[in-house]
Amino acid sequence: KGDPKAGEQKAMMCVSCHGATGNVSVPLYPNLAGQHEEYLAHSLHAYKKGERSGGQAEVMKAYVSGLSDEDIDNLAAYYASQKP
Amino acid sequence: KGDPKAGEQKAMMCVSCHGATGNVSVPLYPNLAGQHEEYLAHSLHAYKKGERSGGQAEVMKAYVSGLSDEDIDNLAAYYASQKP
Repeated sequence: KGDPKAGEQKAMMCVSCHGATGNVSVPLYPNLAGQHEEYLAHSLHAYKKGERSGGQAEVMKAYVSGLSDEDIDNLAAYYASQKP
Repeated sequence: KGDPKAGEQKAMMCVSCHGATGNVSVPLYPNLAGQHEEYLAHSLHAYKKGERSGGQAEVMKAYVSGLSDEDIDNLAAYYASQKP
């Protein structure tokens, strides 16, 4: 299980597309707020492993490539703790 | 833009994993309620085109393969209209 406080620090790079609280203003992008931590971590690993393509997948892969497993857990914990 | 009423009919096959209102009980699966219609339609097309792998992607591809573009728009409109 991740640390939401540590995740909030790492989330600096996510906010331009996903919003500071994980609620997007661009309707083509997913809201992250209130998703379960497990699903959020799963998705980040999927991008990192190259299991997603099309859309913004290459952008996501670039962002996620520098994240450790712990960073991913922390980010997932942070966005899971936010209100939709 | 899709028709949420028509989408609700089609959603019969989605509810066992994603819940009747798009709020999941299985933490590894994504909530759909309150996502933007555009993102939901994008995701369904991504599964249909085989742009996602790993996790439940093969299951999703199988479900989505029988859906028309209109079905996808309707499903997206339905889940976008649900409350997180």
